[in-house]
Amino acid sequence: MADPSTTPPFTRASVLAAHSLIKPYIHETPVLTNTTLDQLASTPRTPEELKGTEWEATERPANPKIRFWFKCENFQRIGAFKARGAFHAVERLKKTEGLEGLRKGGVVTHSSGNHAQALSLAARENGIPAYIVMPTISPPPKIAATKGYGANITFSGSTSTEREAVTQEVIEKTGARLVPPYDHPDIILGQGTAALELQSQVAASLSTSGNTNRRLNAVITPCGGGGLLSGTALACSDLDPSSGGPILVFGAEPSFSGADDGRRGYYSGQRIESVSSLTIADGLRTPLGAYPWSIIYERKLVAGMYSVGEEEIKKALRLVYERMKVVVEPSAVVGLAVALFNEEFRSMVEREGGEEGWDLGVVFSGGNVELAALGRLFGEE
Amino acid sequence: MADPSTTPPFTRASVLAAHSLIKPYIHETPVLTNTTLDQLASTPRTPEELKGTEWEATERPANPKIRFWFKCENFQRIGAFKARGAFHAVERLKKTEGLEGLRKGGVVTHSSGNHAQALSLAARENGIPAYIVMPTISPPPKIAATKGYGANITFSGSTSTEREAVTQEVIEKTGARLVPPYDHPDIILGQGTAALELQSQVAASLSTSGNTNRRLNAVITPCGGGGLLSGTALACSDLDPSSGGPILVFGAEPSFSGADDGRRGYYSGQRIESVSSLTIADGLRTPLGAYPWSIIYERKLVAGMYSVGEEEIKKALRLVYERMKVVVEPSAVVGLAVALFNEEFRSMVEREGGEEGWDLGVVFSGGNVELAALGRLFGEE
Repeated sequence: MADPSTTPPFTRASVLAAHSLIKPYIHETPVLTNTTLDQLASTPRTPEELKGTEWEATERPANPKIRFWFKCENFQRIGAFKARGAFHAVERLKKTEGLEGLRKGGVVTHSSGNHAQALSLAARENGIPAYIVMPTISPPPKIAATKGYGANITFSGSTSTEREAVTQEVIEKTGARLVPPYDHPDIILGQGTAALELQSQVAASLSTSGNTNRRLNAVITPCGGGGLLSGTALACSDLDPSSGGPILVFGAEPSFSGADDGRRGYYSGQRIESVSSLTIADGLRTPLGAYPWSIIYERKLVAGMYSVGEEEIKKALRLVYERMKVVVEPSAVVGLAVALFNEEFRSMVEREGGEEGWDLGVVFSGGNVELAALGRLFGEE
Repeated sequence: MADPSTTPPFTRASVLAAHSLIKPYIHETPVLTNTTLDQLASTPRTPEELKGTEWEATERPANPKIRFWFKCENFQRIGAFKARGAFHAVERLKKTEGLEGLRKGGVVTHSSGNHAQALSLAARENGIPAYIVMPTISPPPKIAATKGYGANITFSGSTSTEREAVTQEVIEKTGARLVPPYDHPDIILGQGTAALELQSQVAASLSTSGNTNRRLNAVITPCGGGGLLSGTALACSDLDPSSGGPILVFGAEPSFSGADDGRRGYYSGQRIESVSSLTIADGLRTPLGAYPWSIIYERKLVAGMYSVGEEEIKKALRLVYERMKVVVEPSAVVGLAVALFNEEFRSMVEREGGEEGWDLGVVFSGGNVELAALGRLFGEE
């Protein structure tokens, strides 16, 4: 990997620089709105809905006003925001190492998910060999998709020790440079570019529709390793005061069997370094990385972390399919689920947003869902 | 229903007039493109792929060049193009009968599908009562959705005789005006408006990208009752010669257990008046109506009818979910399935399109899929 000491500082300006590096390779994904979901989010939950949840005893359910802006990274290349970080990491390596050396040695990562496909694509478009270390037990469609981008796949055991050992072997054999999935400055800066686009897309849309008194008040993103969340936080930091005020950034996690490690760490002041959860939001099963933690917690660029249960994620998923007609993966809707179903978040928006309410950006992080799994999810209901 | 003798003539000008009537009520839905699907459509099918199909013995699989333009009526209000016809029918009734009378008597239809929801919405927005006759065995989510638009639902048996008898009772009791799902001029003219938008959206996009030598060459739509197909044919007829040439219109049907009644009728010269098929493309189980037939066959405004099997529809559905990340119902992808998998259609495009190939409009008719059914469809694979 690029030596972190040579990477750009963690500032909004560095995210802007990342954006100009990767623009030729990525899509400016669309931002969608949806009146039905706005109405739903802006209606207090009923006592029946709250029954059986931790807010059952709430006397007065929250009554926020929320207007959503969905940044659709499910329409991004390879179907997820991960293309941004991967292209940025490769561009930075090209600058620091030179393309020729990279073409000889290649790049390597261990991942069975979206990052594997993203790195394979970024490498292929630059004529660089990509080596992907994947657990033998990876789902065949994911293996096929990664192969489809021309990557060389090496199988490993599924523990992180086993994967890292195999990765090390690949590096020794090929001289490939490691591009980790989230815990690296270049990755974080790349992922932050989605929030930059969101900012200008919302501003343009509000100005076209004559709503010049409104602005983006906050953004909520899913949080797994924390690359997207910390990049978003950087993109929303140091804003020009003439832009109308700060944009608060929030992280969303599944609460199932401890996947809310980011939230627990954030409120206890101690980063949690391992997670073992089988939440349906399979992109969010990883622990928060050290670099993301430094931005999210130490610099307090994230204003709060919230979690939701599996049923709430499924409900949000169903709403997106039925009402918005777009394909998203379960991880992608965790922010929406927080805004619709987490009473703490909703009370906070009611308090902070007041009469006017909030224009809330929600990053739909990806759309790579295995259709058979989706089938089982909805088929069993 | 409005007396057909008072309805506008079957011309492109009438579709334009319909468009200006319904514009305030409907979405101009987006038109998407997709490089992966273009490449797939522009690659000859392999002998292995053709094995077991009727084209198994083909010596040289077709090699057309196809650039798709997907008109996304799955993003239309109520999730399907049916909103266009329903709003147009209601606007026309308002003009011919006056709003007051309509508000007293209401409108009625028998349908368990998208037309029921579309008419309910169009009625509600005009303060008109809507009566919907539905078979008792209709899926509960469809009943709930229609109720959600404020309609009064009356249940009936499931044969067409039983449904028509109940509809007649409703008319006698309430004075409601019948708005049929497809076999009426006002409906046909309304459905044709999607193709008008497609024409100008494609032209604008080609001109912005500097491809001024290209134009929309053809449009393919699904065909059930024939409202969408015949409306599209009218929208593409009598084109100003300065627009660069004719736009050919094609119909697509499932072949499963006789659902290709339109195709069989078209090539035998005799309209087939009843169909009994349980194709997964559930919006296309109806026989072609008499008015659509007069446009499609008698006036020959449709250049050809093609069909595909259930497996091909499922394959196209999977591609749209995986590659385009949009939610469509099985009926919506039958046109795409024809372009990808029907060798007769593909040979014709190769022949007619030549070196340049074709810019082909594909109408994605709707996105109202029951998620549990989708689950079973993909879950079993």
